[in-house]
Amino acid sequence: MRPSKRNPDQLRNIVITRNYTKHAEGSVLIECGDTKVICTASIDEKVPPFLRGKAQGWTTAEYGMLPRSTNTRIDREAARGKQTGRTQEIQRLIGRSLRAVVDLKALGERTIQIDCDVIQADGGTRTASITGAYVALHDAVSYLLKEGKIIESPLRDFVAAISVGVYQGVPVLDLDYAEDSDCDTDMNIVMTGSGGFVEVQGTAEGAPFSRTEMDAMLDLGQSGISQLVAKQKAALGLV
Amino acid sequence: MRPSKRNPDQLRNIVITRNYTKHAEGSVLIECGDTKVICTASIDEKVPPFLRGKAQGWTTAEYGMLPRSTNTRIDREAARGKQTGRTQEIQRLIGRSLRAVVDLKALGERTIQIDCDVIQADGGTRTASITGAYVALHDAVSYLLKEGKIIESPLRDFVAAISVGVYQGVPVLDLDYAEDSDCDTDMNIVMTGSGGFVEVQGTAEGAPFSRTEMDAMLDLGQSGISQLVAKQKAALGLV
Amino acid sequence: MRPSKRNPDQLRNIVITRNYTKHAEGSVLIECGDTKVICTASIDEKVPPFLRGKAQGWTTAEYGMLPRSTNTRIDREAARGKQTGRTQEIQRLIGRSLRAVVDLKALGERTIQIDCDVIQADGGTRTASITGAYVALHDAVSYLLKEGKIIESPLRDFVAAISVGVYQGVPVLDLDYAEDSDCDTDMNIVMTGSGGFVEVQGTAEGAPFSRTEMDAMLDLGQSGISQLVAKQKAALGLV
Amino acid sequence: MRPSKRNPDQLRNIVITRNYTKHAEGSVLIECGDTKVICTASIDEKVPPFLRGKAQGWTTAEYGMLPRSTNTRIDREAARGKQTGRTQEIQRLIGRSLRAVVDLKALGERTIQIDCDVIQADGGTRTASITGAYVALHDAVSYLLKEGKIIESPLRDFVAAISVGVYQGVPVLDLDYAEDSDCDTDMNIVMTGSGGFVEVQGTAEGAPFSRTEMDAMLDLGQSGISQLVAKQKAALGLV
Amino acid sequence: MRPSKRNPDQLRNIVITRNYTKHAEGSVLIECGDTKVICTASIDEKVPPFLRGKAQGWTTAEYGMLPRSTNTRIDREAARGKQTGRTQEIQRLIGRSLRAVVDLKALGERTIQIDCDVIQADGGTRTASITGAYVALHDAVSYLLKEGKIIESPLRDFVAAISVGVYQGVPVLDLDYAEDSDCDTDMNIVMTGSGGFVEVQGTAEGAPFSRTEMDAMLDLGQSGISQLVAKQKAALGLV
Amino acid sequence: MRPSKRNPDQLRNIVITRNYTKHAEGSVLIECGDTKVICTASIDEKVPPFLRGKAQGWTTAEYGMLPRSTNTRIDREAARGKQTGRTQEIQRLIGRSLRAVVDLKALGERTIQIDCDVIQADGGTRTASITGAYVALHDAVSYLLKEGKIIESPLRDFVAAISVGVYQGVPVLDLDYAEDSDCDTDMNIVMTGSGGFVEVQGTAEGAPFSRTEMDAMLDLGQSGISQLVAKQKAALGLV
Repeated sequence: MRPSKRNPDQLRNIVITRNYTKHAEGSVLIECGDTKVICTASIDEKVPPFLRGKAQGWTTAEYGMLPRSTNTRIDREAARGKQTGRTQEIQRLIGRSLRAVVDLKALGERTIQIDCDVIQADGGTRTASITGAYVALHDAVSYLLKEGKIIESPLRDFVAAISVGVYQGVPVLDLDYAEDSDCDTDMNIVMTGSGGFVEVQGTAEGAPFSRTEMDAMLDLGQSGISQLVAKQKAALGLV
Repeated sequence: MRPSKRNPDQLRNIVITRNYTKHAEGSVLIECGDTKVICTASIDEKVPPFLRGKAQGWTTAEYGMLPRSTNTRIDREAARGKQTGRTQEIQRLIGRSLRAVVDLKALGERTIQIDCDVIQADGGTRTASITGAYVALHDAVSYLLKEGKIIESPLRDFVAAISVGVYQGVPVLDLDYAEDSDCDTDMNIVMTGSGGFVEVQGTAEGAPFSRTEMDAMLDLGQSGISQLVAKQKAALGLV
Repeated sequence: MRPSKRNPDQLRNIVITRNYTKHAEGSVLIECGDTKVICTASIDEKVPPFLRGKAQGWTTAEYGMLPRSTNTRIDREAARGKQTGRTQEIQRLIGRSLRAVVDLKALGERTIQIDCDVIQADGGTRTASITGAYVALHDAVSYLLKEGKIIESPLRDFVAAISVGVYQGVPVLDLDYAEDSDCDTDMNIVMTGSGGFVEVQGTAEGAPFSRTEMDAMLDLGQSGISQLVAKQKAALGLV
Repeated sequence: MRPSKRNPDQLRNIVITRNYTKHAEGSVLIECGDTKVICTASIDEKVPPFLRGKAQGWTTAEYGMLPRSTNTRIDREAARGKQTGRTQEIQRLIGRSLRAVVDLKALGERTIQIDCDVIQADGGTRTASITGAYVALHDAVSYLLKEGKIIESPLRDFVAAISVGVYQGVPVLDLDYAEDSDCDTDMNIVMTGSGGFVEVQGTAEGAPFSRTEMDAMLDLGQSGISQLVAKQKAALGLV
Repeated sequence: MRPSKRNPDQLRNIVITRNYTKHAEGSVLIECGDTKVICTASIDEKVPPFLRGKAQGWTTAEYGMLPRSTNTRIDREAARGKQTGRTQEIQRLIGRSLRAVVDLKALGERTIQIDCDVIQADGGTRTASITGAYVALHDAVSYLLKEGKIIESPLRDFVAAISVGVYQGVPVLDLDYAEDSDCDTDMNIVMTGSGGFVEVQGTAEGAPFSRTEMDAMLDLGQSGISQLVAKQKAALGLV
Repeated sequence: MRPSKRNPDQLRNIVITRNYTKHAEGSVLIECGDTKVICTASIDEKVPPFLRGKAQGWTTAEYGMLPRSTNTRIDREAARGKQTGRTQEIQRLIGRSLRAVVDLKALGERTIQIDCDVIQADGGTRTASITGAYVALHDAVSYLLKEGKIIESPLRDFVAAISVGVYQGVPVLDLDYAEDSDCDTDMNIVMTGSGGFVEVQGTAEGAPFSRTEMDAMLDLGQSGISQLVAKQKAALGLV
């Protein structure tokens, strides 16, 4: 029995709010149960130095948690003077996941900078960030189209992410914090709207996991992602 | 004429929402017009090294802005590896302002750590932070009282803050971003509920200001603060 | 056809040299084709602060590349003043992988610190690091047993790692640099000697990968790991 | 009774020595009682990146204290690897104060860099820095005029600074360390030679201060500043 | 002919002023021609962690240059966030040189911290720092004796330092900036009052130097050091 | 009697292996007894900013120790976020020593970057680094000649380095760790193949050293260097 009483294959309640703050070209609040992340997409009409003159754009991401988004306050990374290894792993993952569906040549020589800031954490912040960031990215692309900066969208597909795991011997979908901190295996899956895998990152927290469990988790992930993509489409008014 | 059509002595619309996030002992969203700041108060049953064994507590603050809380994206301080001078000035100001009304001996050997994170900026983020942080601090103190950790409140008064300035030759209350970026003088005033000054920080951005303007700004500030303290009391159900 | 002429399921030549340097309790040079990594295991009779008084030990890892281990010189991280996100990801992965087979309580209140330093890189440095580090760890444990510091080994299993990928549409085992820099998918697999999965990290570098490709890569990984564990056992004289 | 036996409205002894060191275009030792600060003004024929091509110059300041300028040795900021928040506040204040009287367009595309280094501290180091820095700046401007780099002075006024406070219930001028560390309120006032306010920064260290005390402190500040500007003029031979 | 018209074996004018600032237990201004360094010695009744419980004291040094102590302004190390390699070399040299004549056991479990801050540079700042620091150290030791903290001096000898070099083919003593920036060889020599060598650091800036030049430089250094030790004794009233 | 049974004027066994790793233009493993250092020379077709447009090249060096190259593990500098003062001193020394024999104009506008990484330490790592780095530099220069990037070698001479010291009252050549950690004096000498001194750095670790000891150490150093240069020539096939 899951602490939240959910079925093994049941997502938490997902709410995607667009235009959450007023300045960014894309600004989304994504809520996955009690996990809440502000995802903004900012357009910068420059590319980083390593891409200059290469006739392509860039999409990258940064991630942070408010110090008291968590049960016990964590140090503010700006005050410590550096980002933790975990933060860097997560923001690299978000960036790679989004770039998997962006045609960087079609974007033109500009950068879309994603910021994912967790204001309340209850497990699954990195996957919520990816799912929400895609919607913010979509809004930023719509802004570029509307402004006439580009004439066709560089987005080649949808992308969303979800966690799966083995909790008390049972493969489950979308772990919340209570499950995440007590599970045997935790796996993050990133997939496109058309069903291709972009990232699979599974870690045995307790006992190693078997090939059978691996297969069950991949099945759950595929099911969860297709529900999330449907939510993204609904939020974007594309259904 | 102010860009917002407000009268010179008119505050923006103020909304104070308590229990905004679920983990912190005090958690407040303060909105001053389009400026929105999450203020949390976290209790830590320790004091910093310089206070160990001195039979007193501590209250301190940290401040940050989400990278796209502003019109143009600003660098993430955690990624740059250090806080700007402006950030440090502001968080020192918030901490001093709150300590002015906290009896640190009565707090006991514990720290209340304030975090003020701006999710949308439209001028006056530091004063909004102080006004909101006081409410979060009050909730954290109530938590300590309810848990029996302390038996009387260490809060000796209310404290709130507001900006005043000289905009196109006219002293005005509560500058928004449009005014702030185009004014001659910008002054932040922090006062207690009983009307004492805690901080006065005035800067001539353009022409130096006269003693007469100084007096007018202090008058406006006193009026604004008493309205803000009334808002704090209403939010706390103390009226 | 692979650039190296290897069959899709063929490992590179693997050489494991123990006692490579003289100071460390465990010191191994692992060569996987042209990839060469020095792995040392150092015993420290202390635990990090977060484990003090918890009656358990710790195993952790650090990773680095000599600046000219690569085709084009990379910046020295010590001179830049920080480790890249990639370095942090890798050293966290190595540490987690080893801890999956160490009984930390049986280790006692001490740390085994692993250092993996790449002296020549040709793809697969993180997986070579894990495979080599296990052997160094085993030697450090033997040292503790011989010195009478512990009376039974805290090692519960073997652990090794390998990369798999999809190269020009074909799933292949053990990518070298030529393949790695030109493949569609790159996946690192960490498994125990008894066949459990510890980590699976797959990334679509080009096109997303299908469930069928996923399955083929997992099969290749299982086969590669069992060969690597046999090499570890042979190097340790345990066959 | 003040510890120094001074009257409430009495400055400490002020000595301004020009050409104190030989390399800088302006070099001043200012002594305010036992507080001694070396203020240098260095001309750099460049502007910072944010001003390039804007046909204007820049004036900025840095501040430091020798580690044993104080009663108890303080850490060397260069060795700690960062400037404290206090240092950054002070150097930002010095820079703003000087820019209030510099016509940056008339300065041309060059920077005058001010350095204020405290060699002995006894209270009031930031206000002494501003007062002394103005004289160094004046000498650097004279150098530019003499060299024919500019043909009219970009200095539009004089500027000086002083502290005022409430010590044992009495408003007093120019706090020394004994007073500063034991006063209720500490306020720094920066004014131009023609009597305009540039900065007012008042902080209640103990009890909040009243509007009446505020008014008395402003009166004292105005009186002190006019004496300091007279000292600057005398030192510059302009009387 | 030397730019300063001095004979090859002639020191610059040396002035040692004790009690230069009021807070430090030892405070010296040393002037070697136009090179001026403030050297303070601060007593701290603690030892660094690596010496705790070892029944001995410590003497160490830090070094800095005011940004405009030089002809062209140098970056402030506190603002850059780190000390240069040159600064670290120099402060390590000063510390080692002084420890050569301090009996650390006789000092007791306390630290004497030396700070050498260059307020005007004209060559030879590191050697002037050592020579001046010794006098400050001597005064700090006298303070400890007077306070009854120790009953015999831990100073076993005098120590002083001087530069020598080969300028336009001629070995010369005590290089000033004009010579230092244009010489073939620059050597710093640290010796005790009784004539033992503590450090010899010679660098060929242009052509390598011969054994004959080496011998001539050592002769000049020995002569210069004995004059400097005489100056130290005179300043300390020990003649 | 030396711990290693060597005669006072006897070097350790020296082995120089070229082409030790495959990517660098010059790559050498130098072994001096149990001290082992990988020295690589990397060509970069750029010069650092301070040399741009000056029609000359640059040669510089970085140095590091693997964390467990030593008897007790040392912190990884990349993880600490900065290089120690010792590391900076050593890498500055290596760079200066090599530049003494490179005609930077003849090198053209390119940089040869030397990296010296100690994989096993037993005393004398900095001198081994210089001696080995010269051979790597020579190979990189040969590569430039072969590629036709330059038409004559910018190397004007050989350069090598050795330590000498006073161990138990006896001047000895080439200290190993056992001697180095227990000697009175440690001196590093860098000389050219034609017998000129490039650097002499002597430090009294215990008692100061006399002029007689100085002379004896210089004699030993001259003898050691000529043997090392012969080894370099043999390794390069130039005999």
